[in-house]
Order: sequence, then C-alpha cells, then structure tokens
Amino acid sequence: MTKINTSPLSGFMELTPTKQARFNYLKTLIATTYAEHGFLNIETPTIDRTEVLLAKAGGETKKQVFFLDRPDKDEALRYDLTVPLSRYVVEYRNDLAFPFKATQIGKVYRGERAQRGRFREFYQCDVDIIGRTTLDLAYDADVISTVTDVFTRLNISDFYVRISNRKILSGFLQALNLADKTSEISNIIDHAEKVPQEATKSSLKDLGITTQNIEKIIAFTEIRGDKDTISSKFTQLSIDNLDFTTGVNELKTVMSLLAQQGLREDQIIADMLIIRGLDYYTGTVFETLLTDYPEIGSVASGGRYENLASNFTNDSFPGVGMSIGLTRLFFALNEKNLLPATSEKPLDIAIIPLSEAEYEFSYQTAKSLRQTGKKVDIIFTDKKLGDKLGYAAKIAEQAIIIGENEVKTGIYELRPLS
Amino acid sequence: MTKINTSPLSGFMELTPTKQARFNYLKTLIATTYAEHGFLNIETPTIDRTEVLLAKAGGETKKQVFFLDRPDKDEALRYDLTVPLSRYVVEYRNDLAFPFKATQIGKVYRGERAQRGRFREFYQCDVDIIGRTTLDLAYDADVISTVTDVFTRLNISDFYVRISNRKILSGFLQALNLADKTSEISNIIDHAEKVPQEATKSSLKDLGITTQNIEKIIAFTEIRGDKDTISSKFTQLSIDNLDFTTGVNELKTVMSLLAQQGLREDQIIADMLIIRGLDYYTGTVFETLLTDYPEIGSVASGGRYENLASNFTNDSFPGVGMSIGLTRLFFALNEKNLLPATSEKPLDIAIIPLSEAEYEFSYQTAKSLRQTGKKVDIIFTDKKLGDKLGYAAKIAEQAIIIGENEVKTGIYELRPLS
Repeated sequence: MTKINTSPLSGFMELTPTKQARFNYLKTLIATTYAEHGFLNIETPTIDRTEVLLAKAGGETKKQVFFLDRPDKDEALRYDLTVPLSRYVVEYRNDLAFPFKATQIGKVYRGERAQRGRFREFYQCDVDIIGRTTLDLAYDADVISTVTDVFTRLNISDFYVRISNRKILSGFLQALNLADKTSEISNIIDHAEKVPQEATKSSLKDLGITTQNIEKIIAFTEIRGDKDTISSKFTQLSIDNLDFTTGVNELKTVMSLLAQQGLREDQIIADMLIIRGLDYYTGTVFETLLTDYPEIGSVASGGRYENLASNFTNDSFPGVGMSIGLTRLFFALNEKNLLPATSEKPLDIAIIPLSEAEYEFSYQTAKSLRQTGKKVDIIFTDKKLGDKLGYAAKIAEQAIIIGENEVKTGIYELRPLS
Repeated sequence: MTKINTSPLSGFMELTPTKQARFNYLKTLIATTYAEHGFLNIETPTIDRTEVLLAKAGGETKKQVFFLDRPDKDEALRYDLTVPLSRYVVEYRNDLAFPFKATQIGKVYRGERAQRGRFREFYQCDVDIIGRTTLDLAYDADVISTVTDVFTRLNISDFYVRISNRKILSGFLQALNLADKTSEISNIIDHAEKVPQEATKSSLKDLGITTQNIEKIIAFTEIRGDKDTISSKFTQLSIDNLDFTTGVNELKTVMSLLAQQGLREDQIIADMLIIRGLDYYTGTVFETLLTDYPEIGSVASGGRYENLASNFTNDSFPGVGMSIGLTRLFFALNEKNLLPATSEKPLDIAIIPLSEAEYEFSYQTAKSLRQTGKKVDIIFTDKKLGDKLGYAAKIAEQAIIIGENEVKTGIYELRPLS
C-alpha cells in the first residue's frame, strides 16, 4: 500500500504541542497588549474578491497572490490585513466610532520563494487607528508606543525604533527641484543600506542628478540621531519648503510624545534612511529592531497614510498603522531563546485512578481542580502504574494517585513529576 | 470613479466590533474548557496537498473543496480539521505522548450553497484523543463530558446528548442476515427523522427486505431512553451476536461513566436513530442538542473511530473525537440571545486630556491602569469636551478627564459613562 507524504507543505509552519504553547504565549501577549491599549479586535474573511484584494496591488504583489480555482468566481486569499480592513471600514462606517482603533490577528498568504524564516502562510498582528477626515498626530505615537510595550512585556528592553516622516524627503526633493524623481530616489534610499555607498551614488547619477545634489542627498540620508541632534542637522541643510518643515515638526512632535511615555533616547532614533515602501505612506514611517539581533531585521513596522480606502469610497479615512509579523518573529525569538521560559509540561495535573472503582472520585477531583483554572487530565490507560506515571511525567507538572484509601478519606496527595 | 463593492463574500461571517467581542468570548470559553480538560492545542496549515485532503473524501466532499489555482501545484483549503490531524499525528508520532489529547480551533472551508446560518468559511473547535494500538473506552466519556462542560459553563443546562454505538446496529443486522446491506440501511436510518415512517419503510422495502425484518428494524430504531429503559428493550430483541452485545455493553459503560460525572439521566439519552454518517465511526457516536431550541440541530457531535490515519501509515491509531461548529453555534446562540450579557462597551476606561500639557500625566495614568489589566484609550482628538465625552461613551465604561488640577494633585476621578 503506497502511503502519502505527511510533512506539511514547504513554507507552512507546523509545531509540536510544546512549541505551539510557546507560540500561543507570544500571540496572547500581543493580543492582550493591543486590547489594553484600546484596540478593538475584528476579523475579516481569509478569502475575498480579487477586485478588492488587487485594487491597490502592484505587479510584484499580484505574482504572490494565492488565487482560488472556482468556476465563475474571481476570488483569492488575502495577502495582508490592511486591504480587508479598508473594505471593512467603508462597509461598517456608520456602525463604527471614529477614531476607530482596530486590531486584527490573522493568517495571510503569499506565494514567496520559501526560505529559512520566510513563510507562505503567516500571522500578521496589525493595529490601525482610522480617523474620519482628520486624525491627530498623537495617534502616530500611540501606535508606536503600543509596539514598544509588546517588547517591554516580553522583557526585551534592548530594542529601538527607527523613525522618519515621508514629508521631509519629499519637501527636501522639492527644494532640490527633484520632485519628479521622488519615487525613484525613494527606492534608491530604501535600498541604500544593502549596497555600498558608491552603488547608491551611481544609481542616483543614472537618474541624471548632479554631483552636487548627489552629495546633498547622501548627506541627507546620513541624518540620524535623537531629537536635538537631528534638529541641528536639519537646520544646517537650510531648506525652505513647507512639506519639509511640516515633516520635521511632525517627526519632532512624535519623538517628544514618545519621550513623555518613558522611552529612552536610544530607543527612538530618527533616521532618514527609513522609507518603508513607496506609495502607501505619507507621514510618519518607522521600523523596530532588536539591538542585539540586527540579523532578524525589522520586527514591527508601519506608518501614517493619507487615506485608507480611496478605492472604495470618496470619503476620507486617514490612518496610522503597524504590523508585527508574528510567525517570523516567533521563529526568530524561539531560535535565539528569547521567549520567557515556559513549562515544557503542557498540563498542570494528571490524575491516576488505580482502578475503575476510583473513577467517580477522580471525576470529582478533576472537576474541582478545573474550577480553579487548572489544566487536568485523568489517565484511563490499562497500563501498569509505572507506565502511567511515565506518561503523566511527559504531560503534567504534578500527579495525584487515587486508590481505595483516597476515596475513603477524601484526602489525596499532589506529587511533583520530574 | 467606479467604486468597488465592499460587502464580504456571501457565506463569510464578518462582525462589527461589539459582536466580534461576543464571538471571541464564546471562542475563548471553548478553548479554556478544552485546555482545562487536558487537551493540547495544535495548529495545522489551512492549505494542504490535495492527495492528503482527499485521501478519504467521497464525491460530495470533493465537490465542496476550495482548490487553489497555482501552476504545477495540487493544493486546496482544508474542509475539516480531522484530516490535517491525521497527517499531523503520523508526522510527529515520535514526539507525542499517547494517548494524545489534541485540540484544534481553526477555520475550514466548504463551497456549500450559502443559506441562513450556513457558512463557507467557519470555525471548527475539535477535540480528539488518539491512542496507539488501543484506547480505553473511558476516553469516549471523557470527550462527551468535555462538550457538556462547555454548555454548563455557558449556563445552558438544558441540553441533552443523544448517544449510540455503531456496533449495535451492525451486530443487529448481522443477526438478521442483512450485513451486506449495512451501509444502505444505515443511510436510511440516518435520514429516518426527516421523513414520515412510511417513507422509511418503503426505502427498506426497495432494498428487498422482508416485511417482518422491516418491522424489526423499525422497532430497533425506536429504542431510546436512559440506561435501564434501553437495557430491557435490547433484551426483548433477543439478538445473539457478539458485535451487538459488545456495542450494548460499551454504550452502557459510557452512559454509566457520564452519570458518575454528575450528568442527569435526561441529559444522556441512548437513541438508535443516531448514526453520524456512514464509514468513519466504528463505536460510540453522539450528538448534542439544546432542549429548548431543537431547530438549531446538533451543536456538537462526534464518535469513536478504529483508525485515524490508515491512509498515511500501517500503524494503528484508534481515536475518539468531537467537533463544535463555532461559527454556526455563535450565529444561533446570538440570534436566540443565549450568550451571557457582555458589556456593549469594548473598553474599560477612556482618558481625556484637556490639552497637550496633560498628555504626559495621561500616559502615566494609562500605563498604571493597563498594568492592572484594564483596557484603556487616550482620546487625542481636537474636538470639544462634549464631543470627546460623546465618543468616550461609545467606546468605554468610564472616563477620566485630566486637566491642570489633576496633573498638579495627581488625583483624578473615574466617571461612569452612560
């Protein structure tokens, strides 16, 4: 008889129960942090109309989408949680109170080339704050402090947020008369960290930019530091442009609001290399890194957008949002042993009745222990006591053996299982 | 500008935040009950190889499967959680302790015709107990008492479990020399409740069964009641067959174990009409109904199977399992107002700083309240105080207004929001 391959598909995470418990711990910690920061949980379907999912998507995204094969239907699996959110906000706009602080924790699908630490099915944990027509800048700091609280609760205090504001670069390029090349230059800056500076310069030169302006752009991308440091560097650039000034002021305000929340100067670093993609973001942009593990890359990123739902409505829904890639984060934290030690035993107590005569008392004991929130199993196998204890030691922290005497006296002993 | 339809696809549940909170309450209650009964949570991918998913599936199932449209791939969305579990158990059999008590809570997909209360994407909440080679009968009662505990915790005590054992019918038909028609007769009994008795008789007659045997089968299907009632009725049938006797004894043992757990006689009813599909189950079968809401139908069902994973391995993995269709259950309970009253307000406290000068104190206040587990939002809109209070009343139970005086004294007042 030919048997079928039982491994999960490549690029799909599947965990043994002990690791799954660790994963669930991380997922619950994130969900609890989001809820305590005032975000309301919603769930959107995993499947949606192709016209909804691809309304804004470019060619690269489209190539990665999992399309469904159903007659007369044009449906696909969601590749992020933001597109379904935009549909949701428009659909229920009359039932929602704005600003609407939403969180979604759910699976998304991308047909990327599978590689270590990259997944085709993965959880995203998103928060978004959506306004109607306007949304106060303080909400940008609200989103960032929510993600920093996640890492604080994980006892990972050595993280830092790299933050910028898209208006600064666009104002800067306007002042250099390079506004028509904003998209290409943004793209080059976005990749500047991954290539030698000469390559960046040569890419800028290929766009026909003068040597003098190239030097100015390079100087711009090197602006990095705390609020005071960058303030003086921005002044040195002597740029007279409204977007530039607005962007700088917004960046300083957000940094100041984060300082008021107790974040240290070395945890919030302005950095003009931060772009975060091309078209979507229009103000604050940020990414979050773990100081001791730069190789993990950004563990949470997001920013401010002008309008969440321009494909679906003429109403204006400005917003600011952030996403943690949970599956990848779990993979990295688990590999580096950065998750708090949780018990390797999934259950609290295993009850072992010595014979069927002790089942009823065992049921009662289990019931009262469960009422105190304990995870309790009763072992019904017909094996010898030694084998039952061996099994109990694999699944539980403690055991209770129930025999004639325990039933008679109503008294039992909790034994540790090593 | 043509705008895109923003409603979710037909057959896909999508809830406003208040209803979502109620849904999450039900989901968490089920997950907690399962965990406290000793089941270990696992997660399997939503997508799997078609050969895995369809290894056991018949024609009807295959018609409902959502296949993916990916070049050179033969993949589909899971239509239940049992098939992925069987692959999982075989794949990780050396890492698991048996009996393995597993729970999965996840979305499955079926392309059924959409109708009221039926969904194409829905949550199943499964528990399964898997043995190696053998599995004690007491685990059948373990699974059933887990589901009854869910309804007890929901304060729905008016439920009852209809229970049977597949060996009884097969032994009975062997004794009538009708073993070769077991599958067809099972199918007819499975549908007997939905049609007039004359139709059942006529279907049996179409199979060439004698009038005398038809009367015996009808008498058999009318056996229903508590342990003592059915005992005497089974004796009256005077059947001399090993499967029959084994099935009756197993049924009585499981009922007795459930009685020992405090379930009332009217909550556990043996009923020979219970078949639960055709091929899968081999022993105990059961379904769960809400006494006052028969129209909802079975809210949880399951049974004992001989071998979980015969498609994947020659090893023997006998098991017993059960599934709650969460999405449908939520739909029904919510419609009948059977879910415990939860607050309509998603958050505990809304903090309203009167100006930017009070942001820092507001941040501190929010932080200390969140440390006690409260869900807290700070309102940063530039609206008038009355508008802010109106917004706060929509999202939170209580408000704290922070002005100059609160910052100076460190004392603030919690105001109820009606």
